[in-house]
Amino acid sequence: MNDDQSPASSGLSRRGLFGLAGAGVVGAGIGVGATAAITAATATDSGAAAQYAFFGEHQSGIVTPAQDRLHFASFDVLDITRAELAELLSDWSYAANRMMAGEGAGQYGPASGPYDAPPDDTGEALDLPPAGLTITFGFGPSLFDDRFGLAAKRPDALIDLPHFPADMLDASLVGGDLCIQACSDDPQIAVHAIRNLSRIAFGRAGLRWSQLGFGRTSSTTKAQVTPRNLFGFKDGTANIKAEDPKTVTAQVWVGEKDGPAWLAGGSYLVTRKIRMIIEAWDRTLLQEQERVIGRSKGEGAPLSGGSEFTDPDFESVGATDQPLIDTDSHVRLAHPTATGGSQLLRRGYNFVDGNDELGRLDAGLFFISFQRSPQQFIDVQSNLARDALNEYIKHVSSAIFAVPAGASPDSYVGAGLFR
Amino acid sequence: MNDDQSPASSGLSRRGLFGLAGAGVVGAGIGVGATAAITAATATDSGAAAQYAFFGEHQSGIVTPAQDRLHFASFDVLDITRAELAELLSDWSYAANRMMAGEGAGQYGPASGPYDAPPDDTGEALDLPPAGLTITFGFGPSLFDDRFGLAAKRPDALIDLPHFPADMLDASLVGGDLCIQACSDDPQIAVHAIRNLSRIAFGRAGLRWSQLGFGRTSSTTKAQVTPRNLFGFKDGTANIKAEDPKTVTAQVWVGEKDGPAWLAGGSYLVTRKIRMIIEAWDRTLLQEQERVIGRSKGEGAPLSGGSEFTDPDFESVGATDQPLIDTDSHVRLAHPTATGGSQLLRRGYNFVDGNDELGRLDAGLFFISFQRSPQQFIDVQSNLARDALNEYIKHVSSAIFAVPAGASPDSYVGAGLFR
Repeated sequence: MNDDQSPASSGLSRRGLFGLAGAGVVGAGIGVGATAAITAATATDSGAAAQYAFFGEHQSGIVTPAQDRLHFASFDVLDITRAELAELLSDWSYAANRMMAGEGAGQYGPASGPYDAPPDDTGEALDLPPAGLTITFGFGPSLFDDRFGLAAKRPDALIDLPHFPADMLDASLVGGDLCIQACSDDPQIAVHAIRNLSRIAFGRAGLRWSQLGFGRTSSTTKAQVTPRNLFGFKDGTANIKAEDPKTVTAQVWVGEKDGPAWLAGGSYLVTRKIRMIIEAWDRTLLQEQERVIGRSKGEGAPLSGGSEFTDPDFESVGATDQPLIDTDSHVRLAHPTATGGSQLLRRGYNFVDGNDELGRLDAGLFFISFQRSPQQFIDVQSNLARDALNEYIKHVSSAIFAVPAGASPDSYVGAGLFR
Repeated sequence: MNDDQSPASSGLSRRGLFGLAGAGVVGAGIGVGATAAITAATATDSGAAAQYAFFGEHQSGIVTPAQDRLHFASFDVLDITRAELAELLSDWSYAANRMMAGEGAGQYGPASGPYDAPPDDTGEALDLPPAGLTITFGFGPSLFDDRFGLAAKRPDALIDLPHFPADMLDASLVGGDLCIQACSDDPQIAVHAIRNLSRIAFGRAGLRWSQLGFGRTSSTTKAQVTPRNLFGFKDGTANIKAEDPKTVTAQVWVGEKDGPAWLAGGSYLVTRKIRMIIEAWDRTLLQEQERVIGRSKGEGAPLSGGSEFTDPDFESVGATDQPLIDTDSHVRLAHPTATGGSQLLRRGYNFVDGNDELGRLDAGLFFISFQRSPQQFIDVQSNLARDALNEYIKHVSSAIFAVPAGASPDSYVGAGLFR
């Protein structure tokens, strides 16, 4: 196979079939050529019926209205060749396109008889609608080492994030060669997507870490109500909105002159698992909580006055000449006026991973942001070094990925890497 | 306080306020008497708007149509007195009643001024509907040791479950003095409930273990489509249905002559965390998967023929005189005909807790069943000793709780223990 010519719409590679079918039962030709690319999927937006197109100018799951549930996975590529890596990415696009249209990852039931192979889809999403599923692929800095001859393709900006003051990283939750973000309004759909893509990768890439999330913490469109994070505050009021194409172009999409051609129309994805010290926060005075955030808890209005969408007035002072919005408050330090204009398209999710050995909820925010350059995130995060919120959080994971542009139906996401 | 006279509707105890407010800021009289009991809540059943009554003959969350999301928590009672235990249960009922009606766990914002205490609710469910929230309380065998003078109140049947063949229990996930099952169609609502009840218990009971789940695996009413477990099979086709009061009475509710008076109208709750060996299952032939379960994967029909709701015919044989439904199949061994008539009201949820250190999904079924007697579960589980499914699962947690009847608005769940 010529490694830049494996259109995702033509079916799974033999290795992809191998991943699905397990050792010894390969070769039934399952699904190859049997399914035309699903490109006409209408991007509707009506709850469970929502369905988005996989192929297109940009990948889905970035400016797509934030869905309610997340399954995110980071992978290490195993000992395979450059051509096999390309084949994996093509196989992933093939299955992602199918699943986003509400079909199985592969044809359900082997083509050549009912019983001679494992099902090509694990089945738990049978009968369910796509529920707004989006699948977004990204490439970590480590993919561009010398294993696959991709070193020359690495964008200069795609390097591991620096250490930040609130970092208490768990090495097992950091980085990865590849990532997949699956978002849906139904957790069973998001889990089904990651599970089947992991199966397809069998022998080629292995799960490094993964994270489930719920209750999106950011509205990414003007029509969405601003959700709340587990501190009980609205989160994402000042987020970049999809309806503002000028800001999206300036802050989210990588431009043609920004770096390598394969990344034009793509973005950079940063993830940070932020554990919240829930019990300490919950015993903090409401006044202190609001001082730390810089907004009221109920309405979400800036402490300088107004309502949720009123611009914060950082100059306003109270009776004692103290600023109404504290100098160390989160809203002040994260605001574009404090970060040299850097803005992030945030798309994070709350998480609760049970409890720790001390009986404290293992909960917090799985932060996800998309930006045109990693420097935007670095600017914002560096500015948060003296954030009053740091007393109540710790960052336990960190990763950065370059997210290529979308693919056309005769190609696959990431094909540009191999040209 | 007379320990059997603390109506849940009269507000939180001083200790409950302490749990909410933290050290040093007690005494503002938050919410005491400020909120009338919410008893008129209509049990509607229309998605996010669904709302159930907390007070009633039975506790909610048993025959209630299974919601989509679960947060389950097991607690150890700390070093408190009998009266303080009663007070905790009263405080929990007070808050549960409020939250099931879509209110905060306590009054939002202290009554005596905006800023002199932490909020009495953590806030992440502000603006959200109850989304069908039910909160169900249970008591483990260990609650009836000599700490609280309850030994004489222990039902004879409430003892730790025996060891079963597929058990590979993690000691940190077993048992507990108290349990709370919170179910809702919105995970943020279920999580909010457990979090705030944990806060109220501060200093009185501590989290022992907890579990989140999604995508219910059983339909508990005839109107619900049978959902699928993570093996991709429909699960719960033959479950007890709420519309069958005769079976519910015979199999779910503890009768007046069955045991202590405080448990009449209640039930026994069994939980089992069943880890699925997903990767092995996914590489198993479809034929083998269906043999193991005894049903077809797509339709869910018994292998003896028909459609999903056709009764399995265990006598039917195929061309080679082999039974069409294998003798070790799950459906045969779990069927009431094989368990002496014992049936369970199953109400389990799928879980995915990320991945293990080998990159395998840490996923499976958090099994929950309600039954009139623990013996029903023991009968069924004992019969599954040679279940072909055991090759693909392991039970890692186990717990049993007695679930008292519902409370009237002038009392609280569990008050009967202290009479």
